[in-house]
Amino acid sequence: MRYRCVCQYDGRCYSGWQRQPRDKTVQGEIEKALKAIFGVPITIHSASRTDSGVHALMQVFHFDTEIFIPQERLLSVINRRLPLDVAISHVERVPDDFHSRYDCIGKTYVYKTELSPQRNVFSSSYAYHYGKPINLELIRLAAHVLIGTHDFKGFMASGSDKENTVRTLYTIDFIQKETVLEMRISGDGFLYNMVRIIMGALLNVSEGRLTVAELEIALVNGDRQKLRRTAPSSGLYLVETRY
Amino acid sequence: MRYRCVCQYDGRCYSGWQRQPRDKTVQGEIEKALKAIFGVPITIHSASRTDSGVHALMQVFHFDTEIFIPQERLLSVINRRLPLDVAISHVERVPDDFHSRYDCIGKTYVYKTELSPQRNVFSSSYAYHYGKPINLELIRLAAHVLIGTHDFKGFMASGSDKENTVRTLYTIDFIQKETVLEMRISGDGFLYNMVRIIMGALLNVSEGRLTVAELEIALVNGDRQKLRRTAPSSGLYLVETRY
Repeated sequence: MRYRCVCQYDGRCYSGWQRQPRDKTVQGEIEKALKAIFGVPITIHSASRTDSGVHALMQVFHFDTEIFIPQERLLSVINRRLPLDVAISHVERVPDDFHSRYDCIGKTYVYKTELSPQRNVFSSSYAYHYGKPINLELIRLAAHVLIGTHDFKGFMASGSDKENTVRTLYTIDFIQKETVLEMRISGDGFLYNMVRIIMGALLNVSEGRLTVAELEIALVNGDRQKLRRTAPSSGLYLVETRY
Repeated sequence: MRYRCVCQYDGRCYSGWQRQPRDKTVQGEIEKALKAIFGVPITIHSASRTDSGVHALMQVFHFDTEIFIPQERLLSVINRRLPLDVAISHVERVPDDFHSRYDCIGKTYVYKTELSPQRNVFSSSYAYHYGKPINLELIRLAAHVLIGTHDFKGFMASGSDKENTVRTLYTIDFIQKETVLEMRISGDGFLYNMVRIIMGALLNVSEGRLTVAELEIALVNGDRQKLRRTAPSSGLYLVETRY
């Protein structure tokens, strides 16, 4: 039988989602808990494979097991075995053909940028400490260019080899909470490092290093030359995974 | 000449304030930065020696040096050499007879208790995850007993050997922000673990394990028997140091 789980994690102390032989990862910690509970190794499959330092409020994964444990009980026994910075908020039995990655129809990320020059010791791992004012009008204008269906191959970390790099961005919204700029970006899917490259480009636009026209050309040409800035992972949150 | 500094730190990754031969401490990190700047070992003296995991929004320390560096410049060079979870917000030259500990006339701590049963992966190191409702009326009533000048020797961690254990508590206030209870406690000074032992006693009162009358007797008798609960360090913040 197949279980679907929703989880949150503070990415600060993890080398990302994906299991690794040596480093502490979120997948690794959850699989360790499941192995202790079910007595056999269990592989989990997530909707997203978040990078080192990236946080999640709504990551989704599934796994298969032969052993039936009631949902509520499973939820509490997993949480008891997880570190305090990883938590499962929902467990549900799902049909055997459910797949957390292939059935996902959309995701939302939030990127937090700290504008205050004063360092905040509590937010250093939870927002990118940019430390300068931004031109929000210009950022909004540039972000608008990216909305819609485009080939985002220029907005993908070099080295990744996705064949289909066409994605649809539904919305990019900005709100400023005190000194923190929050970008909320929704789409049907995101390429590797795409949100952080978008954020880097928007900051370059704000700083006058990249014009909105150049951004538009880079989008059309799929040219990475103008899109070399990748905002740090600490500001990034996977906040919604839709089915 | 003597400099006075105000600093903040996220205590999560530190074995407290006080320098230790092996473990990472806040004093150790700041002294390392100062040694690199001044070229000679410098000892700093703080108003409080916070425990492992305790956070600070306003810790004060002073140090002496023969080398003059303008305040603003010193502020920026120290911060550049500190880890991201420690920051200096203020540097000032002070008279040679200023002492961060002996001249301190009062301090305020905040203790945060998470009441929601749902674990929050981001707050596990920034609040005590209590996870149950509390009886705030009873807690307020019990806290009121502690206000004023008392011998708080029952509210001191065993093993510490302060001679004078009389302290004056000016105020203990409670506000609830969503699911987090914040206790704000001000006094002329605090004994070792005093705030965490007070918080533990108030939670015991809330749970019916300790009556307000028993708390009052424990305060008068200096009896530690009834005051064995120490709330965890993760919820504690040094928020003000007054001169």
